[in-house]
Amino acid sequence: MQLARVIGTVVATQKYEGLEGIKFLMVQPLSKTQQPEGQPVVAADATFQAGPDELVFIVGSREAAQAMPIPFVPVDHAIVGIVDDVQLA
Amino acid sequence: MQLARVIGTVVATQKYEGLEGIKFLMVQPLSKTQQPEGQPVVAADATFQAGPDELVFIVGSREAAQAMPIPFVPVDHAIVGIVDDVQLA
Amino acid sequence: MQLARVIGTVVATQKYEGLEGIKFLMVQPLSKTQQPEGQPVVAADATFQAGPDELVFIVGSREAAQAMPIPFVPVDHAIVGIVDDVQLA
Amino acid sequence: MQLARVIGTVVATQKYEGLEGIKFLMVQPLSKTQQPEGQPVVAADATFQAGPDELVFIVGSREAAQAMPIPFVPVDHAIVGIVDDVQLA
Amino acid sequence: MQLARVIGTVVATQKYEGLEGIKFLMVQPLSKTQQPEGQPVVAADATFQAGPDELVFIVGSREAAQAMPIPFVPVDHAIVGIVDDVQLA
Repeated sequence: MQLARVIGTVVATQKYEGLEGIKFLMVQPLSKTQQPEGQPVVAADATFQAGPDELVFIVGSREAAQAMPIPFVPVDHAIVGIVDDVQLA
Repeated sequence: MQLARVIGTVVATQKYEGLEGIKFLMVQPLSKTQQPEGQPVVAADATFQAGPDELVFIVGSREAAQAMPIPFVPVDHAIVGIVDDVQLA
Repeated sequence: MQLARVIGTVVATQKYEGLEGIKFLMVQPLSKTQQPEGQPVVAADATFQAGPDELVFIVGSREAAQAMPIPFVPVDHAIVGIVDDVQLA
Repeated sequence: MQLARVIGTVVATQKYEGLEGIKFLMVQPLSKTQQPEGQPVVAADATFQAGPDELVFIVGSREAAQAMPIPFVPVDHAIVGIVDDVQLA
Repeated sequence: MQLARVIGTVVATQKYEGLEGIKFLMVQPLSKTQQPEGQPVVAADATFQAGPDELVFIVGSREAAQAMPIPFVPVDHAIVGIVDDVQLA
C-alpha cells in the first residue's frame, strides 16, 4: 500500500457498468515524509467519501477490487483507509 | 486507473482466439495536467468505441480482463470509461 | 520478494473492514547490500509483530493477501518472514 | 499490452513441468514509433510460432497465463497476436 | 519472465507457515547480453536446487505461486527453469 493525498475528482458519465456509484479520485502518491512522489493515479473510493487534501492509503493491482462492493470489477487502485498519523522510527 | 488519450489503432488479424471482436487501441497515459507521461500501451476497448484523441481512463493488470465480455482472456490494459472532466482540488 | 527494513507505523482508525487487527508498517526496500533502494511502502504484518529496524522480506502484488488470516482483502504488500542472514555468493 | 519485436530464443531443458512444449522467446518492447523501449523480456508463445524480427503484441502479469493451453502455469509474459499494422492518429 | 543469475541465499527461520521447505535465493535480473540489470530480488526455488552463479529464468507477480507445491502462498518471484542457452537473432 502507499500513502497518498486526494488532489481531485474524475467525472465520467460513460463507464463500465459495474462501476456505477463508485467515486473516482485523483490521488498523489507520497514519500515517507509525505512529499509528492511519482505520478498521480485514479483511485476508486467506495467507502470513505474522502475529500480534497485528505491523507489516505491506497492499494494497487488486483487486490484493489477487493475493496469494492462487488469485487469482480475492473479497478486497479482503491482507497482502503484514512491515515491519522505516520510514526517514523 | 490512469488518464490516457487514444492515439491510434493496432491491426492484428492473427490473435488469441478469445480476443476476436475486441478493438485494440494505442493509448498515451497522461499526467494530472493531461500531458503525455510515460510510454503508450495497447488497451482493449470492448464497450466504448473510443475514437482518436478521446480522453479515457484505463485499468491495468489482472483487473483489465474484467472489462471484457468474457473475463478469462489475456488482456492487461482496458478502457473502462470516457472522461468528461478532471477537477483538481 | 524483496528485502526491507521496518521504519515506522501507519495509524488508521477508518479502514476497510477486513483489515481490522492487522498492523500496517512503513518498510524501506533494500538493495542486496542492505542499503535503502526506492521508496518505502506500507506493508501489512498479520503474523510477525515486526519491530522498528527489523530486517524482513516482503511480498507484493496479489499474493500479499495470501499472508493474511482471510485472503480476500485489499492488501498488496505483506511481511512474510524475518530475515536472519543474507549470504551473497 | 505492448508492442514488441522477437529478438531471440531461450533454450531451457530443465523447466517447470507445466511449461513443456511452450516456446520461450526474447522479445524487445517497442515505443509507438516501434523503437526499442526498455529491457527485453522472455515471453511464452504457445500459439503463433512467431519468428525472428516478427512484430507482435504481448500481455504481461497474471493474464499472460490465460494465453496458455492450461492456464495454471507460472507464465507472466505471453505473445497474444501478430501485429499487421499500427495506425497512429 | 526474465533472465537472472543466482547471487546468494536468504536465511529466514521465522516465515509464513506455507513457505516451509522452500529455498529463497537472491537473484540478479540480467539484460539480453546477460549483464546485471536493475535490483536483485528474492525468488523462491521449490524445484531446481539452483546453485550460485546459475543462469535461470524467473517469473514474477501472481503467477509465481503457480510454481510452488501448493499455489496458495505469498510468493511473487519464482525460478521456473534453468537456462542452457540464449540465442539472439
